Amino acid sequence: MSKKVAVILSGCGVYDGAEIHESVIALLRLSQRGAQVQCFAPDMPHHHVINHLTGAEMTENRNVLVEAARIARGQIRDVAELDPADFDALVIPGGFGAAKNLSDFAFKGASCTVQSDVLRAARGFAAAHKPVGLMCIAPAMATRIFGAGVQCTIGHDPDTAATLGSMGAEHVDCAVDEIVVDAPHKLVTTPAYMLAKTLAEAASGINKLVDRVLELA
Amino acid sequence: MSKKVAVILSGCGVYDGAEIHESVIALLRLSQRGAQVQCFAPDMPHHHVINHLTGAEMTENRNVLVEAARIARGQIRDVAELDPADFDALVIPGGFGAAKNLSDFAFKGASCTVQSDVLRAARGFAAAHKPVGLMCIAPAMATRIFGAGVQCTIGHDPDTAATLGSMGAEHVDCAVDEIVVDAPHKLVTTPAYMLAKTLAEAASGINKLVDRVLELA
Repeated sequence: MSKKVAVILSGCGVYDGAEIHESVIALLRLSQRGAQVQCFAPDMPHHHVINHLTGAEMTENRNVLVEAARIARGQIRDVAELDPADFDALVIPGGFGAAKNLSDFAFKGASCTVQSDVLRAARGFAAAHKPVGLMCIAPAMATRIFGAGVQCTIGHDPDTAATLGSMGAEHVDCAVDEIVVDAPHKLVTTPAYMLAKTLAEAASGINKLVDRVLELA
Repeated sequence: MSKKVAVILSGCGVYDGAEIHESVIALLRLSQRGAQVQCFAPDMPHHHVINHLTGAEMTENRNVLVEAARIARGQIRDVAELDPADFDALVIPGGFGAAKNLSDFAFKGASCTVQSDVLRAARGFAAAHKPVGLMCIAPAMATRIFGAGVQCTIGHDPDTAATLGSMGAEHVDCAVDEIVVDAPHKLVTTPAYMLAKTLAEAASGINKLVDRVLELA
């Protein structure tokens, strides 16, 4: 029977939203494995909008749900409506949107908070013992979802790893083509573009993450 | 030796720009096959901006190159700088951006024109007998690039096929997981989201297109 997977996006673009390659690679693998996917995003303003050509901040306002709809080809819902009872697993790609929109980790580091609807939904999956996959910088939300002691990776950047450690996570260094599995929590993490230099490298870890999440579901 | 491939993007989002899944699937396959890729896009305003959640036109102005930079993670250049002599092949994903920004096929049908820098570059690949891959609706530009008699596909939509025929193309019906190869012109086309219902279906044809383009290069 095909697994139902919720995917939470955080906009559309690495510097202010969901990392597009990570999102599409995950959606592609889920599709190839026969999963039924529904995308979600918070209906809220972007923290800011970055010109991805220059890196400069733009004077525009964009909505996270509306921009994430570009990745989802319009098939997306407000994450406030996400009921973990309707799904077998949750996947959250990275990109700065995970640290600027889904949480404020990019600004507050170890004292960050997670957007309330995202936190409620993710904790719902954790409480129901349904697998969660977090990519790239999204594991910065792991201790807020699962509590202290959760095992995860953001690759091997020492500063970021130390920050996660100070939040109570057990950080495990990990290569780009590997995953870290916290079996008791059913949490799967992979570095993706925290380390990837190419799409092929990003896919090597993301495909393993998706496969393991589906196995655990 | 690794092949050098230019990819022309037309924005970021199916309804007003480059189809994101098609773009990333092509970039992923190119990466997995070891190609060196450089993305390009025209530095010009979007024809318009569509809210991908509602389908409504927005009152914003966006730039095609700046938005396409989201898909390219910032590694993108103005298509006016694209010299076919520097590359072995050209790939253009679909999405309405191919018919609204790279050309005006969405508005003018058989009397459409192609954006001048895109046309110059694409004709340069054709003249140098280097392979070109066009996905989804992008083959609507085929006769402008190669002239009458060129063989291509947009799937099997009879109205669109008839329009391409009236422009001088020899349209060939094609399934989503197949490609049409015009060997004399080294043009490879695939329906992608003209027919695809899932990412896996889109990838089945796009992967074949990328592989054939690389074989021809």
